[in-house]
Amino acid sequence: MVKKRQYKQSPLAPKRLNKLVPINGISLFTYCANFYNKNRKDLSIFLFHNKSQIAEVFTKSSLRSSTLDWNKKALKGREVQAIVINAGNANTFTGAQGKEAISIITKKIASKFNISHKKIFVASTGVIGEPFPTKKVINAIDKKPVATNNWMQAARAMMTTDTFPKGKTIKSKIGNQKILITGIAKGSGMIEPNMATMLGFIFTDASIDQKILQSLTNKFVMSSFNSISVDGDESTNDTVIFASSNAVKFKNKIKSINDQRLTKFKADLEKVFLDLAEQIVRDGEGATKLIQVKVLNARSKNSAEKISRSIGNSPLLKTAIYGNDPNWGRVVMAIGKTYEKVNFKKLKISFGKYLVTKDGRINPKFDEKKLKKYLKKNQININVDLNLGRKKAQILTCDLSHKYIDINSSYKS
Amino acid sequence: MVKKRQYKQSPLAPKRLNKLVPINGISLFTYCANFYNKNRKDLSIFLFHNKSQIAEVFTKSSLRSSTLDWNKKALKGREVQAIVINAGNANTFTGAQGKEAISIITKKIASKFNISHKKIFVASTGVIGEPFPTKKVINAIDKKPVATNNWMQAARAMMTTDTFPKGKTIKSKIGNQKILITGIAKGSGMIEPNMATMLGFIFTDASIDQKILQSLTNKFVMSSFNSISVDGDESTNDTVIFASSNAVKFKNKIKSINDQRLTKFKADLEKVFLDLAEQIVRDGEGATKLIQVKVLNARSKNSAEKISRSIGNSPLLKTAIYGNDPNWGRVVMAIGKTYEKVNFKKLKISFGKYLVTKDGRINPKFDEKKLKKYLKKNQININVDLNLGRKKAQILTCDLSHKYIDINSSYKS
Repeated sequence: MVKKRQYKQSPLAPKRLNKLVPINGISLFTYCANFYNKNRKDLSIFLFHNKSQIAEVFTKSSLRSSTLDWNKKALKGREVQAIVINAGNANTFTGAQGKEAISIITKKIASKFNISHKKIFVASTGVIGEPFPTKKVINAIDKKPVATNNWMQAARAMMTTDTFPKGKTIKSKIGNQKILITGIAKGSGMIEPNMATMLGFIFTDASIDQKILQSLTNKFVMSSFNSISVDGDESTNDTVIFASSNAVKFKNKIKSINDQRLTKFKADLEKVFLDLAEQIVRDGEGATKLIQVKVLNARSKNSAEKISRSIGNSPLLKTAIYGNDPNWGRVVMAIGKTYEKVNFKKLKISFGKYLVTKDGRINPKFDEKKLKKYLKKNQININVDLNLGRKKAQILTCDLSHKYIDINSSYKS
Repeated sequence: MVKKRQYKQSPLAPKRLNKLVPINGISLFTYCANFYNKNRKDLSIFLFHNKSQIAEVFTKSSLRSSTLDWNKKALKGREVQAIVINAGNANTFTGAQGKEAISIITKKIASKFNISHKKIFVASTGVIGEPFPTKKVINAIDKKPVATNNWMQAARAMMTTDTFPKGKTIKSKIGNQKILITGIAKGSGMIEPNMATMLGFIFTDASIDQKILQSLTNKFVMSSFNSISVDGDESTNDTVIFASSNAVKFKNKIKSINDQRLTKFKADLEKVFLDLAEQIVRDGEGATKLIQVKVLNARSKNSAEKISRSIGNSPLLKTAIYGNDPNWGRVVMAIGKTYEKVNFKKLKISFGKYLVTKDGRINPKFDEKKLKKYLKKNQININVDLNLGRKKAQILTCDLSHKYIDINSSYKS
């Protein structure tokens, strides 16, 4: 059994958990499958009542979990009847045994709820490479399912090193019809662009074509989950699912992503994606500070992204920020190591509103005392203006602290 | 003034410092320029007596120190009369002031020793972006120079967060003539392939053509300084210099790198490069363990290198090793996040002689107790056999500990 240490809540955790409103047309069942111990829930099933459509985005890792192989196949049907999520074992590098586990578990769920096992999506998080404890899951599912309206329970059940459950509801509108968006997510370590060890599940009751769901997911994953980083490490299990229960139908069907009626919905959906992504960084392993890195006026989008990621992933810079040290020399280092062509003289680096470099050297008017005071805040903004073009990128990350080492030197053993 | 904390010597430091033999034809002068305090030397000048040739390899960082711009220009002359090295200020991001500093200092040295200032090479390490304290250096050089035969003093004078001075001498032969190779190096943090914040100076008395010196430097930098990593961060100041004093001449000049007489010399030279590189990793900031990652049987050299670096730079894996945790799941993660195509079933991962994965899953015969005991050693070998081709790569790195955070959260401030 995985030993589970309980860590103190992140100092960046929201003061109060968001209230989640369940989505009509979906039931939630949570279980204790004893992945950790008998006192915590670790397994959830979202059951869709009507014919429902689903979109999914996967990790780019070339060694990915069996669960993602399964879902990739299931996604061809574009339809979902249930989503099953567990924490405690990632079902990655589990060979034939892991694949078989999925087959057995989905068949069990299918017979229990009278649905098709091929329309069940699976997501796992936890230790890599340990045999998947199929029997524990089967035993749990065998019990009489009791639905819950508390969707935060599902967010809590998929926590691993997370210190708080992550969810967000926005009440939105499509045309003049009220609709809901509710999402949950998990993730705290091994987070990097391209969604490392993070799971995100976003649901809506609005009846929207699967192709539009998929396009919106692809798009908003880029600005949210793919623009965060904790340690530059990336997982084998990351996935973001967006599904519609079809509980709210529209007289005139929504056929295009450019449908005017979607304007507010799209903005609100992106807010849910961004909010969940920010919560993940706020729960970064050992994080004491949120760091936002913006790279402005780059020659190309690619160049802006390379530079923002290099800064956001630099252990030296992240450790300096942890120590309240405005060590902008490490920003310079992180820019340089991308090998992207930059111009010393044009480059402007600011921490918050404090411009620290100018004309290829330290800003002579720069007030280190004020800057140090700023560095003590729990959100630090680093702006890098390259003054070379018009493209930009940003990344949300956190500092690198003693606690990161505590957590990660003893996770498995 | 830069505050300098003294850290305890790395537990991976060699038990005894190597003995260094000075190279005939080169005098060494060391100074206290008060970069840190009045009690430590921080400035060295190597003075060449005869017409001498030099080779240099530079960081690839796109924001590099003014010193490297200067040397790149000087290198066109292929000749060296002096090398001046300081710790305490990197002369990077110092704008016109930093360039002027080099001009003033080299002119001062030129007049002091009656040489050409354009044949003086400069190297700096320390804080980035602080104005370069030219006057301190001038004041130091103004004092009467006293030569020393203790070359370890120069290694010591360029230490920043280093906890021990690094040097290596090998007595070698070219044909039947005895020759010497002596090198010194510094570096402990911000070390990554492509030589982050590391300085290396290797000297020989053997009269060898500059083009051959340059080819040998390019070649051996790849297998040594470019195959080590501490934190994946890379510096603006890295450089490796290889110079010959011409004190030992050969009747039949050495005109080709393939000259049979060079066989032993080349092997010994590579040993000096490798030894210095290993010493740098042994002094990795906060390091408690040396980690050697070998990637075998990859499809291409590039693929092998990408994978070995991804493993060697993974904060999650390095922290696990620090905690004696054989978390091979994190090796899988680090392979996957390169996006290189690999085959689960063919992949074999070993820690030391312990094979942990096989046939796409955990090795059933794998003895976790023995493996854990192995993990307590202070050198850990991780072998990844991809079984896809015949190319390989390796990287030498160290673990990520609490002390890395201690050191780097307070270096500048």
